[in-house]
Amino acid sequence: TFSRGIKTVTLIPGDGIGPEISTAVMKIFEAAKAPIQWEERNVTAIKGPGGRWMIPPEAKESMDKNKIGLKGPLKTPIAAGHPSMNLLLRKTFDLYANVRPCVSIEGYKTPYTDVDLVTIRENTEGEYSGIEHLIVDGVVQSIKLITGEASRRIAEYAFEYARNNQRASVTAVHKANIMRMSDGLFLRKCREVAENYKDVKFTEMYLDTVCLNMVQDPSQFDVLVMPNLYGDILSDLCAGLIGGLGVTPSGNIGANGVAIFESVHGTAPDIAGKDLANPTALLLSAVMMLRHMGLHGYANKIETACFDTIREKKVLTKDLGGNSKCSEFTADICRRVQDMD
Amino acid sequence: TFSRGIKTVTLIPGDGIGPEISTAVMKIFEAAKAPIQWEERNVTAIKGPGGRWMIPPEAKESMDKNKIGLKGPLKTPIAAGHPSMNLLLRKTFDLYANVRPCVSIEGYKTPYTDVDLVTIRENTEGEYSGIEHLIVDGVVQSIKLITGEASRRIAEYAFEYARNNQRASVTAVHKANIMRMSDGLFLRKCREVAENYKDVKFTEMYLDTVCLNMVQDPSQFDVLVMPNLYGDILSDLCAGLIGGLGVTPSGNIGANGVAIFESVHGTAPDIAGKDLANPTALLLSAVMMLRHMGLHGYANKIETACFDTIREKKVLTKDLGGNSKCSEFTADICRRVQDMD
Ligand SMILES: CC(C)[C@H](C(=O)O)[C@@H](O)C(=O)O
Ligand SMILES: CC(C)[C@H](C(=O)O)[C@@H](O)C(=O)O
Repeated sequence: TFSRGIKTVTLIPGDGIGPEISTAVMKIFEAAKAPIQWEERNVTAIKGPGGRWMIPPEAKESMDKNKIGLKGPLKTPIAAGHPSMNLLLRKTFDLYANVRPCVSIEGYKTPYTDVDLVTIRENTEGEYSGIEHLIVDGVVQSIKLITGEASRRIAEYAFEYARNNQRASVTAVHKANIMRMSDGLFLRKCREVAENYKDVKFTEMYLDTVCLNMVQDPSQFDVLVMPNLYGDILSDLCAGLIGGLGVTPSGNIGANGVAIFESVHGTAPDIAGKDLANPTALLLSAVMMLRHMGLHGYANKIETACFDTIREKKVLTKDLGGNSKCSEFTADICRRVQDMD
Repeated sequence: TFSRGIKTVTLIPGDGIGPEISTAVMKIFEAAKAPIQWEERNVTAIKGPGGRWMIPPEAKESMDKNKIGLKGPLKTPIAAGHPSMNLLLRKTFDLYANVRPCVSIEGYKTPYTDVDLVTIRENTEGEYSGIEHLIVDGVVQSIKLITGEASRRIAEYAFEYARNNQRASVTAVHKANIMRMSDGLFLRKCREVAENYKDVKFTEMYLDTVCLNMVQDPSQFDVLVMPNLYGDILSDLCAGLIGGLGVTPSGNIGANGVAIFESVHGTAPDIAGKDLANPTALLLSAVMMLRHMGLHGYANKIETACFDTIREKKVLTKDLGGNSKCSEFTADICRRVQDMD
């Protein structure tokens, strides 16, 4: 895998600390001699024909060509009246699976030491359909849309993921006791798909029960698959167990290899431009990206270096409990990947 | 408050371990000389005129007369085709506020020691509206219904609760960045009500962010108010932080003093009838009930005895880490309340 040609990836640095942490990732990739070339694109909402919000054509074309993107945080100004750019990107490229591995990081202390799970979230419909109505004054309905097709697609993704990543079980997370038709349909599709993956254990669990058990003993969970909103909630909860969004990677996966990997923390405007940001989440997302591209050697090298730096506790950014700058933390990881050669 | 007359309360022992833990509560109330008389009623789904599911008239009449109920766990057989009896009870008596105080229990070890918060959940609408449609084959929608009236009512309840219980802040939990109209309406009502409670601090937070922060530092939270499903999730998560549903009380509050207090754990059919159940959740729910009735002296006495028994660790049921039977645990609490006289 080290001998492939150089691949081009669309880089969306994002807002706030986005550019700094993107630079950090590029430096580390360079030190690791990862065969990646970056095509930087801005993403700000623009109004297309018919008044529909869209991402700028240069970003769209770049992604259409490269298929793979890495993205820093984007600000989501509700006041601006346009939808979240994060959501618009997921929609534009039909990135139907949101994948977040949560693994305890050695040396970074939280109340939990044995988290090793993956949340797989349906990323295109459910409570995020965007369909809402004012029925009469003071009465509003939001529509949660569940289709058999999207449910089957995400269930298949989850089982394929489990099989390809040596994971023993998939748990479908739902509230089919309350939303009998919608969550019921989701659950039925999971059950159907499970029939084709007899090598992977399948279980079902209520969302509330998962939350309760999760904070009591996260080690019991493996791969979790669920509708959109439940995934939003559960992925953040799980990120909290291992240290927060600053250390948690994320990938949005579509069909035919299309994918955008992103750090899901905020833009941290208060520390932007001060060389204080922690690039770990974006770096680990970039590691996910390398694995997605089949570049496992580079992925392992960079991931090991990052975890070694954190475990050694000598060069850490402030949010990780240290006093170092983003550039120093980055340099420490670069040194380690170079030493591995 | 010790001089009032005897009040009658409707007791719904429930299924599985329900009768055992109800007996435990009755014994402890007797030992404490609490001025409560129990009117036992069964609750099983019956089909009323027009095929609508309802609770048995004897239970309905008892509640209508007494206004206050205590309830053990009820089994919810999806297969039976009727709605959850827990939900039907909440609906029948318009119990619009689901209140769950979560406080760390001294001596009962969890990864958290400083939880002291209350979740207040809108209990009548939202994702629990029960309205679902099959649009075309394989496409289902569930409707989340939010009204200004119910939102205002629950917000007012939360602020009144904060004020009357010396709590400093109320946080509205929402996803108005996604469900802009429905959660937007809920949030707007919270903001409006907050204007009338300048003595209580008001904040707003996304549900995913609350989940993340909750597992990192629950001590930052005080009173949390939210729509139905979010409350379902968050109350279970918070229960997990302090030891689970076996030690967490719950109250369903309606207008004009009507209320049902309940343990929210399951019926535990595997240990039913074996004198192994832990009555703590139902007992602490009964303590909430006493406070609701203004019987604070009895409430404090029983609560103190229960926590003393747990802290001393000599007589504990299995789930609490001990070897004692339900009856022994109960007797230990009885002895303590008697010693307080
Ligand atoms: C930014 C926001 C719209 C988004 C979501 O709600 O999905 C975020 O919370 C996430 O989890 O990626
Ligand atoms: C029993 C079930 C219907 C109920 C709910 O979903 O509300 C339970 O989880 C609860 O929290 O009281």
